[in-house]
Amino acid sequence: MAAAEAEVSNKGVILKRFVTGFPTEADLELVTAVVRLAVPPGSASVMVKTLYVSCDPYMRNRMSEHNEASYIEQFVPGEVLATFSVGRVVASGHPNFKSGDLVWGMSGCEEYTLITDPESLFKINHPELPLSYYTGVLGMAGLTAYAGFFDVSKPKQGDYVFISSASGAVGQLVGQLAKITGCYVVGSVGSDEKVNLLKTKFGFDDAFNYKKEEDLNAALKRCFPQGIDIYFENVGGAMLAAVLPNMRMNGRIAVCGMISQYNLEQPNGAPNLFCLVAKRIRMEGFMVLDYFGTYNKFEEEIAGYLKEGKISVVEDVAEGIENVPTALIGLFSGHNIGKQLVTIAHE
Amino acid sequence: MAAAEAEVSNKGVILKRFVTGFPTEADLELVTAVVRLAVPPGSASVMVKTLYVSCDPYMRNRMSEHNEASYIEQFVPGEVLATFSVGRVVASGHPNFKSGDLVWGMSGCEEYTLITDPESLFKINHPELPLSYYTGVLGMAGLTAYAGFFDVSKPKQGDYVFISSASGAVGQLVGQLAKITGCYVVGSVGSDEKVNLLKTKFGFDDAFNYKKEEDLNAALKRCFPQGIDIYFENVGGAMLAAVLPNMRMNGRIAVCGMISQYNLEQPNGAPNLFCLVAKRIRMEGFMVLDYFGTYNKFEEEIAGYLKEGKISVVEDVAEGIENVPTALIGLFSGHNIGKQLVTIAHE
Repeated sequence: MAAAEAEVSNKGVILKRFVTGFPTEADLELVTAVVRLAVPPGSASVMVKTLYVSCDPYMRNRMSEHNEASYIEQFVPGEVLATFSVGRVVASGHPNFKSGDLVWGMSGCEEYTLITDPESLFKINHPELPLSYYTGVLGMAGLTAYAGFFDVSKPKQGDYVFISSASGAVGQLVGQLAKITGCYVVGSVGSDEKVNLLKTKFGFDDAFNYKKEEDLNAALKRCFPQGIDIYFENVGGAMLAAVLPNMRMNGRIAVCGMISQYNLEQPNGAPNLFCLVAKRIRMEGFMVLDYFGTYNKFEEEIAGYLKEGKISVVEDVAEGIENVPTALIGLFSGHNIGKQLVTIAHE
Repeated sequence: MAAAEAEVSNKGVILKRFVTGFPTEADLELVTAVVRLAVPPGSASVMVKTLYVSCDPYMRNRMSEHNEASYIEQFVPGEVLATFSVGRVVASGHPNFKSGDLVWGMSGCEEYTLITDPESLFKINHPELPLSYYTGVLGMAGLTAYAGFFDVSKPKQGDYVFISSASGAVGQLVGQLAKITGCYVVGSVGSDEKVNLLKTKFGFDDAFNYKKEEDLNAALKRCFPQGIDIYFENVGGAMLAAVLPNMRMNGRIAVCGMISQYNLEQPNGAPNLFCLVAKRIRMEGFMVLDYFGTYNKFEEEIAGYLKEGKISVVEDVAEGIENVPTALIGLFSGHNIGKQLVTIAHE
């Protein structure tokens, strides 16, 4: 054990202060600590070397001091952020894990992280695929897409599916799952480059750049003259208001996130919720945490699609922990193209 | 047949013009026509003498020129309003109906009405109960309450149930069905008199007058320190915004109506819809029309409760067709106490 107990430098990213409005890189800070590559004697913890960290929109909610709608606890100013990551076990006091195991799960946003609750880690069963996929398509974002689409949206072949923020980690998989299901799929994104990506890489039937549309309602009517059966909601606000009157009878809105609202001090609501009545629409929020028990089934199915080439993945990969703040903040201006992650170490 | 073909005066209520904002009595007009108490030769129509007409909040939607959220066609200015009513068949060309039959269904808001689609009529199977009940607790409003509560809200014993506009035709029955189901039930209403009604007549566990509450969120926290499992939504707007953060995990919001929004040119939306995600809330609109096929089962069950005294009914009964405009417009200022209806004829 002595050999493993070397002390090493451990860089991590902390939240400097709670955030109001749009976060900036100045709200985050890179700090350097020292860590022993060991677990406390007698503990069931696991020490993990971080390979990749995930940058996800929901993390904005954890940066606010108080948010009645928030779903998980706030970050603690001065402490290292928590995030989903992929890593390799370097020391373990837990019988289910041994040095060398590849895992993914919630960890500190740092080079080495002590997981005190290793039951929350998932083993990586398909290391023959790019390990970075476990920050996205094979990780939390992928399971979010899978659960939200199949369990919440209840798709049928031939359904008309609209996805906002469609080139992101969740949206790109929802769209491809919808195509596999035999749906007609349209996505909205924030640049022409992303529109092109949806059509050429992910096989969407149509797509539009919401920043170029003067009238979102007209854009939706153009793309969905028949109306929308399923709206996979990632943005909220004006897009939701435009979607509601374009929903079809018995439509479903899976509320995954509302990124347009996260940085507003006064969120704006959809003024036309009464559309829910006329069209018998079901609008339902969901959280991926509720589906972690189904992870292994999901992993096998998606790994299969990936190997068969039925699902494509676009990642936006930053390099080095010092670039986490830029990568994370960039999410909120749509800077990323595809799944945003940061490589922390290559081995 | 000749004897039945007497021409009689037929008063009815027309919409004079499409309405913007709050409707007034001047938007409606009493007109007098002449009708022959017969059905056209060879037709399958039914001529009905109106006994009671129902005044319902949804009728406001039909008074607007255009409403993207509207669920049924608009009224036609210059033509007699359509409404649910109770009546007696006075002439029939339809094999299922004969003179003397008591029926309820959609008809003209007039003393005598020709039903050209008698398949839409329901026969009254419990004439031993007050016939006026078929405008409310045994009619459209009752089935709305029953379907919205049991089918959409999926209640369980012990659930915490909140009902807005709780003393109205729908709300009063939802509350009593919730009590029968073993739920904890609180209602909001617009006067102290109605608060008293909920507590003493309908057996609600608690109630509040929203007009006297400075902070709806605080009122809900006071009534539901544990949170709300089911919100039966009749009003929308500020009440919905206050309810959302007070919902419990896996809560359900049955969207029946949003009366606070009907007269607004710019409806206000709930700014905190993101709560749907954090609490995994299902918010679902429904329409009673989808449940008409289940009417007979509903009628038997509710008639049983009424005879056993398990359900109480409070009606606000106006007298005479000339008082329909006042009764109908009064709904939008909460003037009615209980189910609003108008007696058109006593026989």
